[in-house]
Amino acid sequence: MPATEKIELKPIGFVKTKAVGKEVRDPSNVSKIVLRQDLTEALDGIEDFSHLFVIFWMHEISKEERRTMKVHPRGRMDMPLLGVFATRTPHRPNPIGLTLVELLRVEGNIVTVRGLDAFDGTPVLDIKPFDHWDRTEDVKVPEWWMRLEKERSEKRKANK
Amino acid sequence: MPATEKIELKPIGFVKTKAVGKEVRDPSNVSKIVLRQDLTEALDGIEDFSHLFVIFWMHEISKEERRTMKVHPRGRMDMPLLGVFATRTPHRPNPIGLTLVELLRVEGNIVTVRGLDAFDGTPVLDIKPFDHWDRTEDVKVPEWWMRLEKERSEKRKANK
Repeated sequence: MPATEKIELKPIGFVKTKAVGKEVRDPSNVSKIVLRQDLTEALDGIEDFSHLFVIFWMHEISKEERRTMKVHPRGRMDMPLLGVFATRTPHRPNPIGLTLVELLRVEGNIVTVRGLDAFDGTPVLDIKPFDHWDRTEDVKVPEWWMRLEKERSEKRKANK
Repeated sequence: MPATEKIELKPIGFVKTKAVGKEVRDPSNVSKIVLRQDLTEALDGIEDFSHLFVIFWMHEISKEERRTMKVHPRGRMDMPLLGVFATRTPHRPNPIGLTLVELLRVEGNIVTVRGLDAFDGTPVLDIKPFDHWDRTEDVKVPEWWMRLEKERSEKRKANK
């Protein structure tokens, strides 16, 4: 196994959104990814995809939070205590965010997307087109996940 | 927009596989992710998911390759010239790999998966459970993508 090494990344751009707090988690939230000007041509052809993965850096997570090993999903004590890799918590050794978004439009170095749950000013590390290899059938998720999702969906219905 | 900043990551583990060259792209390829010993308990509960996203660092990509702006998919001159963000090429500003894999088993700090297209020794940055929020209907991909995929699927059939 190779020696432990440090990896250095530079943001390709930043998230711009008016959403604050819990609003960023609203699936209908529209955000802009403002790409570095020098990378504009690296977007050519992206508009032919309907969906993208956005990989971003959750820069507000502290060094201490990065040392978290176990969490209750969404801080809910009625949920099991789980290893961080069994959850999507931002408290993880490398606080990398990964979200599937809908591509709305591309104008110059600005990519407008729907469904990006990242705060204003978040550094973006990569953008990848979503394709059929990212899909799978027969997905199995734990009981606790289905329970959380059921609550969330009922809340959404009640708010409509 | 925040000033350009550097982001530092430390691998959470490394890929172990006997596959070499093009073999790593075989969807049936089985690999191990050997997690750092100090992170073993962060895996608790992951075995209840059937699929994971593995986020890894394509460490063999050179500084020059990271400056690539445009590529022909798979180096094929009969394919359009596209911005790197419109493809899954490893030649991108931050050579981060993202692959959806099937989780086979977890033993201590070793996670065995099927379908990870990463070479032996590749640093792993994060592991995330795949859930229903990572799925979408009505995916649109470009014509060139469908053409490549059709060829690939015909090749697979011919090899059987």
